[in-house]
Amino acid sequence: TVAANAATASAASATAAAAAPPAAQVAWKGAPEWSSESGWSFKPRGRMQFDAGTVSSPRGINDASLGFGSELRRAYIGFDGKIPGGFGYRAEIDVAGSSVEVTDLFLTYQASKEVGLTVGQHKPFWGLEEMTSDLFPSFTERAAMNTAFGFERRLGASAAYSKGDVLLQGGVFTDNVADLNNDENNSMSVDGRAVFAPKLGAGQLHLGASAHYHDLNDSAASVRYRVRPFIHTSDVRFIDTGNIGAVSELGYGLEAAYIRGPFHGAAEGHWQQVNRPGALVDPTFFGGYVEAGMFLTPGDTRGYKGGAFDRVKPNSPLGKGGFGALQVNLRYDYLDLIDAGIVGGRQNGYELGLVWTPTDYTRFLLNYGHMVYSDAALPAAGGDRDYSVDALGMRAQLDF
Amino acid sequence: TVAANAATASAASATAAAAAPPAAQVAWKGAPEWSSESGWSFKPRGRMQFDAGTVSSPRGINDASLGFGSELRRAYIGFDGKIPGGFGYRAEIDVAGSSVEVTDLFLTYQASKEVGLTVGQHKPFWGLEEMTSDLFPSFTERAAMNTAFGFERRLGASAAYSKGDVLLQGGVFTDNVADLNNDENNSMSVDGRAVFAPKLGAGQLHLGASAHYHDLNDSAASVRYRVRPFIHTSDVRFIDTGNIGAVSELGYGLEAAYIRGPFHGAAEGHWQQVNRPGALVDPTFFGGYVEAGMFLTPGDTRGYKGGAFDRVKPNSPLGKGGFGALQVNLRYDYLDLIDAGIVGGRQNGYELGLVWTPTDYTRFLLNYGHMVYSDAALPAAGGDRDYSVDALGMRAQLDF
Amino acid sequence: TVAANAATASAASATAAAAAPPAAQVAWKGAPEWSSESGWSFKPRGRMQFDAGTVSSPRGINDASLGFGSELRRAYIGFDGKIPGGFGYRAEIDVAGSSVEVTDLFLTYQASKEVGLTVGQHKPFWGLEEMTSDLFPSFTERAAMNTAFGFERRLGASAAYSKGDVLLQGGVFTDNVADLNNDENNSMSVDGRAVFAPKLGAGQLHLGASAHYHDLNDSAASVRYRVRPFIHTSDVRFIDTGNIGAVSELGYGLEAAYIRGPFHGAAEGHWQQVNRPGALVDPTFFGGYVEAGMFLTPGDTRGYKGGAFDRVKPNSPLGKGGFGALQVNLRYDYLDLIDAGIVGGRQNGYELGLVWTPTDYTRFLLNYGHMVYSDAALPAAGGDRDYSVDALGMRAQLDF
Repeated sequence: TVAANAATASAASATAAAAAPPAAQVAWKGAPEWSSESGWSFKPRGRMQFDAGTVSSPRGINDASLGFGSELRRAYIGFDGKIPGGFGYRAEIDVAGSSVEVTDLFLTYQASKEVGLTVGQHKPFWGLEEMTSDLFPSFTERAAMNTAFGFERRLGASAAYSKGDVLLQGGVFTDNVADLNNDENNSMSVDGRAVFAPKLGAGQLHLGASAHYHDLNDSAASVRYRVRPFIHTSDVRFIDTGNIGAVSELGYGLEAAYIRGPFHGAAEGHWQQVNRPGALVDPTFFGGYVEAGMFLTPGDTRGYKGGAFDRVKPNSPLGKGGFGALQVNLRYDYLDLIDAGIVGGRQNGYELGLVWTPTDYTRFLLNYGHMVYSDAALPAAGGDRDYSVDALGMRAQLDF
Repeated sequence: TVAANAATASAASATAAAAAPPAAQVAWKGAPEWSSESGWSFKPRGRMQFDAGTVSSPRGINDASLGFGSELRRAYIGFDGKIPGGFGYRAEIDVAGSSVEVTDLFLTYQASKEVGLTVGQHKPFWGLEEMTSDLFPSFTERAAMNTAFGFERRLGASAAYSKGDVLLQGGVFTDNVADLNNDENNSMSVDGRAVFAPKLGAGQLHLGASAHYHDLNDSAASVRYRVRPFIHTSDVRFIDTGNIGAVSELGYGLEAAYIRGPFHGAAEGHWQQVNRPGALVDPTFFGGYVEAGMFLTPGDTRGYKGGAFDRVKPNSPLGKGGFGALQVNLRYDYLDLIDAGIVGGRQNGYELGLVWTPTDYTRFLLNYGHMVYSDAALPAAGGDRDYSVDALGMRAQLDF
Repeated sequence: TVAANAATASAASATAAAAAPPAAQVAWKGAPEWSSESGWSFKPRGRMQFDAGTVSSPRGINDASLGFGSELRRAYIGFDGKIPGGFGYRAEIDVAGSSVEVTDLFLTYQASKEVGLTVGQHKPFWGLEEMTSDLFPSFTERAAMNTAFGFERRLGASAAYSKGDVLLQGGVFTDNVADLNNDENNSMSVDGRAVFAPKLGAGQLHLGASAHYHDLNDSAASVRYRVRPFIHTSDVRFIDTGNIGAVSELGYGLEAAYIRGPFHGAAEGHWQQVNRPGALVDPTFFGGYVEAGMFLTPGDTRGYKGGAFDRVKPNSPLGKGGFGALQVNLRYDYLDLIDAGIVGGRQNGYELGLVWTPTDYTRFLLNYGHMVYSDAALPAAGGDRDYSVDALGMRAQLDF
C-alpha cells in the first residue's frame, strides 16, 4: 500500500505537470494564433492576391494598359493581438505597390460586453461590401460604387455597439494616414452605420443603412469619382467625373442581403452629394448593385459575421477527400456619374463569376464583366461616348 | 505490489513526458517571446502612436499646417531575437509615413559578460532622453535639443562595456542607411558616452556625458538645425538656422537624472559646434532642459534600465481592479540657435503633461506647451520675431 | 490492489495528458518554425547584410561613389508557411533601400510527390549561382553575368518536377511586380531549366542548363547590361552597354559544380542575345565564371539542396567550443559586353575571398577583386578605356 500510495502521489504530480496551464495555447487560423488564459493573444497576418486579366478596347481607344495585364493585387503583412485589460490592436500594411500602404492600423478597447472603442486607421463604416474584407467579395473587385466614391480607411476614433441582432457604429475621422503626411490636411468626417441582422426562417437577413459627412476643410479642394472597367489590371477609367471643386461630401447608403444554405442575394445603393463652393449647383451621384450567388458544392454556405460577409469554410475541402467549395455569382452593377451639368458617364455592368475555395485560406476566382457605358468620359472613334467593354479577370489568393 | 510497481513505472514515464524540456518557452511581453534553453529566442515587435493636436498661429503667420492636425506618429513592425553562440539581432521599420524608415536594424555579439558588440544601424549614444525609447519619454515629443541637432540612427560598429554602476559606449558610424542610398555619401562619425548610475539613498541616480565628432566629408555639405513647436502635427519651424555650410560637427552632452518612488527629475544639456569651411567663424549652439515628474497613483515609479528611462509597469493596472498609473510632468525646454552671426532663434518652452499608463503596453498622453520665441526665423505681423505659441498635443499608444 | 489500480488509472490519465499531441511543435531554424501534425506550418523570415568596402579610382575618373562606402545591403522581413491541403506560401520584402522591394512572394501547391506548382513572384529558373540564395554565394556579390543580364524575380506561374537526381523547372512569367505597377507593361517570358545532380564518388555533382525567352512586347523598349566593380557600395559601372533598342531577349545558360568534403568547384556560362528591331544586327553577349573553394576548418562542407548551393552548417560552431567554419574561395569572373557594334566593355576579374561562418545563421565575408577592363564604357584620363580597378569588400550577415 505504501508503494501504491507512492505511485498515486507520483501520478498526481505527473498529472499536475501535464495539466499546468501552458503560457500559450495555439490555434491555427491560417497562421498560428497564440493566446493565454490571462488575456493575451497574438497572430501574424498576411494575404496575397495575384491577378491576371484582359480588357477589350473600344474602337479608337488605344491605351497600352488595355488588353492583357497582370499584377500583384494585394500583399498584406501584419499582426493583431490582445493585451490584458481589454485592449487589442491590428497593424497591417499592403506592400503590393512596392511601397507601403497602411491598411488597418488601430488599437481597440472593449469598454463593455456590448461596446467597443477604436482609435487609429480603420474603415468609416461604409456599406456591406466595402466593410467585407477584400478577401471575401463575390468578384475580384467590389461593385463600382465602392471604388468610385472614394471609400477608404481613415484615422479616427469610433465606437461600436453590438447586442443581439443590432449593430450600431459611429465615429469621427480625419483622413487616410498617407494623406495626413501633408500637414496642411484639415479634412474631417462624421460617419455612422446601423445594421439589423436577424435570423429569418432558416437564413440570415442583413439590413443596413449608413450616412457620411465629409468636410474637406480646404480652400481649394476637389473630389473625383471614377472607376476601372470591372477588373484592376488596367488603369483606364472610361467613366470619370474629372476634378470637381468641392467643399464637402454627403453620402447615404442602404444595404440588404440574405443568406440561406447555398444561396445568397445582396443589394446596395449609395447616394453621394457634392457640396460645391458658392452658388454652383450640388450634384448627387448614385451607384448600386444587385447580386445573387449559389454554391454548386453540397453543404457550403457564405460566411457572415459582424455586419459583413465572412470567410467561406468549405464543407469538404481539398486534401480531405473533397474538392472545396465552388460558387457561381451574378451581379448587375450600376453607376451614374451624371448630374447637375457634370457628365462623367453611366455604367450598366453585367457580371458573372466563379469562385473556387479549395480550403479555408485559399481562393481562386474567374469572372467576366460586360460593361455598357453611356456618355462615357473617354470618347471612342468618331467621338462616340456610348460603347461597351468586355473584361475577364482571374485571381489566385491565399491568406493567413 | 506488482500492480503498484507498474503504476509507479507508468507514473514515472508520465512525469518524464510532462517534464521533457519543451522546444520553446513563451513569455508575454506585449507580443509573445519564445526562447529555448539552448540559447534561441524570438519576439515580434511593434508600436503605434496616434497623435492629434493644435498649434496656435502668431498674428500674421498663416500656415495651413498650424491649427488642428492629426497623424499616425509612429508605426513600427519588426523582430528581435537571439541565436546560440552569443549572437542577437533587432530588425525594425517605421511605416507611419507610408514609406519605409529603417529604425533599429543591427546584429549583436555578446563577447563577454561585460562587453557587447553591435554592427548595423543603431543610435550613436546620444544623451539620456534620446537613448530612451520613443515609447517612454515624459512628453509626446522629446526636448527641442534632441530634435534640433539631428540626432538619428546610423550604420556603424560599436562596443559597450557594462559593469556594476558603470556603462561605457563607443563606436564608429557612417550615416543613416536611408542617406547611404546615395553612394556618394562619405560622412563618418565617432561617438562615445559614459554613464554612472548608482543607487543613491532609496533612489536611482543617473549621471552621463557624451561626445560626438561628425565629419561630413563632402565638398559641399551643410547642416540645418530647427525644431517643431512642441508637438509633431505641424511642420512649421519657428526657429531654424537654415542651411549652414559645414565641414564637420562637434557635440558634447551632459545628463543627470534621479528617480525615487513616484518622483523623478532630469536635466540635460548639449553643445553643438559647427566647423564651417575656410575662415568662417564656427558657431556653437546650445540646448537643454530641466524636468520633474510625479506619479499620482500609489506605488508607481518610472522605469530605468541600461542608461535610459524604461517602461512604466503600473502597480495597479486597468483590468485588474486598478486604473493604471497617472503621472504629471513639468519641463522647461530651452534651445538657442543664435551664434557667430547665425540667427536661427531662441526658444524658452514651458511644458506641462499628463501621462496615463493603463497597462504595461498602453499609454495615453495629454500635454501643453507655451513656447516663447525670440529672434525667431519666421517673422510674424510687422516683422515681429519675438512672440509665443501655444501647443496642445495628445497621443494614444500601444506597443508589443 | 484497489489503491494500486487507482494509481494505475491516475498514471494513465497523466500519461494521456502529457502525450496529447500539442497543437504546434517548434523547431528553431534561425527563427522558430511552428508546425502541426495536420499539415500547418509557419515561420517568420528575415536577413540582414551590412557592407563596407572600397573601390579604387582609375586615373582621371572622379566619382564620389568610388573610394570607401558602406550600406545596408539587404534587410528582408517576411513569413513562410504551409496550409493543409497541399498549399504553401512565402511572402518576403527587402527594405534595405528604405523602400519596399518585393522579393519572393508566391503561393505553392504540391500536386504530387514529384510535382510542385507555384504562382506569384519568383525567380524564373536562372543558373546555379542566381538560384542560390543571396545568403550563400561564395563572395559578397554574385558573378558579373548574374547582375549584368538583368536576372530578377518575376510574376508568373511555374511547375517543377523533381525525382531522384533530376530536377525540371519551367514557367511563364510577365515581369517584376514593381515594373507591373506600370499598367502598360506587356512583357512576357518563358523560362526553363534542367538539373542533373547525382552523387559522384564521395561527392555531389551538379550539371544544369537553362533557356530563357523574354518578349518585351513594347513598341519602344530597350535593355541595358552593366555591372558594378565586384562590390555593391559604389554605383559606378565601368562597363555598360547603355540602352539598346530591343524587341526581345534570348538567353542560354550552362552550369556545373562539384562538392566533395571541404572542396568545391563551380563554373557557369550565359549567352544573352538581344533581338533588335528591324534590320539591326542582333548582338550576343557572354558572361561566365570559374571558381574553387576550400574549407580550412575540419569537417566543414558546402550545403547543396534543390539544384542550388545551400546553408553551411559549421561542424564546430562558435559557442560550442569551436570557431565556426572558415572557407577560402577563388574566382575568375568574365563578362564580354562587346558585339555587333555595341562596345560596352569587357571584364576579366580575379577574385579572392574569405568566408567565416561562426554559426549556422551568421556569416562574415572579406573579399578582394582585381578587375581588368578593356574597351570600358567609362574613359579614364586621356581617353584610356583599358585599365584595372581594385575592390575590397566585407560583410556582416545574420538571417533567421
